[in-house]
Amino acid sequence: MTMQANQPIGIFDSGVGGLTVAHALHSLLPHDDVLYLGDSARLPYGTKCPASVEGYARHAVGWLIERGIKLLVVACNTASALALDDLCVQLAPIPVIGVVEPGARAAVEASVNGRHLVLATESTVRVQAYTAAIQQLDAAAQVEELACSVFVALAEEGWGDTSVARETAGRYLRFLKLMPPAERPDCAILGCTHFPLLRSAIGDALGADITIVDSATTTATAVQSALKGLSLLAPESGHGDLRLSATDGADRFARIGSAFLGKKFSPADIELTDIHPADAPVP
Amino acid sequence: MTMQANQPIGIFDSGVGGLTVAHALHSLLPHDDVLYLGDSARLPYGTKCPASVEGYARHAVGWLIERGIKLLVVACNTASALALDDLCVQLAPIPVIGVVEPGARAAVEASVNGRHLVLATESTVRVQAYTAAIQQLDAAAQVEELACSVFVALAEEGWGDTSVARETAGRYLRFLKLMPPAERPDCAILGCTHFPLLRSAIGDALGADITIVDSATTTATAVQSALKGLSLLAPESGHGDLRLSATDGADRFARIGSAFLGKKFSPADIELTDIHPADAPVP
Repeated sequence: MTMQANQPIGIFDSGVGGLTVAHALHSLLPHDDVLYLGDSARLPYGTKCPASVEGYARHAVGWLIERGIKLLVVACNTASALALDDLCVQLAPIPVIGVVEPGARAAVEASVNGRHLVLATESTVRVQAYTAAIQQLDAAAQVEELACSVFVALAEEGWGDTSVARETAGRYLRFLKLMPPAERPDCAILGCTHFPLLRSAIGDALGADITIVDSATTTATAVQSALKGLSLLAPESGHGDLRLSATDGADRFARIGSAFLGKKFSPADIELTDIHPADAPVP
Repeated sequence: MTMQANQPIGIFDSGVGGLTVAHALHSLLPHDDVLYLGDSARLPYGTKCPASVEGYARHAVGWLIERGIKLLVVACNTASALALDDLCVQLAPIPVIGVVEPGARAAVEASVNGRHLVLATESTVRVQAYTAAIQQLDAAAQVEELACSVFVALAEEGWGDTSVARETAGRYLRFLKLMPPAERPDCAILGCTHFPLLRSAIGDALGADITIVDSATTTATAVQSALKGLSLLAPESGHGDLRLSATDGADRFARIGSAFLGKKFSPADIELTDIHPADAPVP
């Protein structure tokens, strides 16, 4: 299998969250086509067990490979944390980029005191993937991971910038106020692709002395570097088309996803696909 | 197929929410055994499309029938709204009771002015199942259905009785304050089995002049009547055992579910089962 520069970049996520990565990618690589698959029939991955997440990811990625992609972005933090190694083997030689490693790298570059706070979903926190990735780059780093499941619901409700979001962020992060200043982290990673929609509420609760690292933007930068290194960047004649696919609920995907993509799209723009035949209704 | 009084009552839900129904059932029918199946691998149903929910429900219910139940409670509002007729056909002659009809009946009895507010998930609201069930009993009733997805996340986070829950309820329900008193509902149905955990926050936001109908308790009463009518109530020698099964994540199920059941249980108390083989990890 050889990859071609004019093939699309594949993005896979459990739902609409990865559209924040698609948004960042399109800003950075406007000539590259993107094929997006949201496995919305099985979302959220963040509360499922590792075996389920690995199985879902393999099915979803198989679907993308059949359509011909030059690089895969695993835009779901949970799947990146749980299934990335497996996916690299499954896809070789197609390069695979998760959201965890680029986020960890940016955090290590941003932090002065080597203390990190990771805000993520339950599953991502359970496997401590960010801690491992950060400590691979800075063995002395101290990392605290915090599950913030309610942020996901607020992002999907379109309540990212409301008093509820601020109250929620305040509740999750109030422990920071009780820490001695010398022990406080100086860097916080948004370790879930939904969380950029609450950036302002989270920033207020963190305070001005903690830098926010957004894994969506850092991932887009990692994709750019990888494609450049492999001479697979799209030519300037490329249109930068975005094709959207989902496994469930085009209406909801469009209604909620538009805020994540930063651009309005309609249910008619989404190809519905069934990647798990056994989940289809029994005839 | 003949049902026996000493067989368990089957309860099916997408996750832990139906444990509020199991709790109400056990209080009312302490001698009856209960077999509970939470399809946690595919939760939440509330944001999935009808075809997916119908398929999930048929698989889950097939698993319960194989184990021998005398009555099925569809404790998931979404599945009750979308799949109840199908399930009645699939299970006949085993009686099937959903949460929608008992809740609607109690609401019609509780309301004086015939104006109802239903708080539910997106899918339940989309199909307007409560509106249909209420208007079947009171053709002149006026029903407003409101999707409150964030309540689910708060219940699962154990934040049912926090300032975030009150802020969230206040935001969802602030439109009530803008209504002329004569147009306000006098009855609100908790149309999702998660919502009883936010009962106090929801009650504060509704105000004292709106009666809350909890579909968990009303469903337990409906089960009692049905079993009595069919002479299928368990004998007084029955132990009232509760057997818990889930399709994913015993740790999470136990941690979150204990609050719903009103009784502490551990992951070891849960039988993990795979009702959808194709969702298992690819070998």
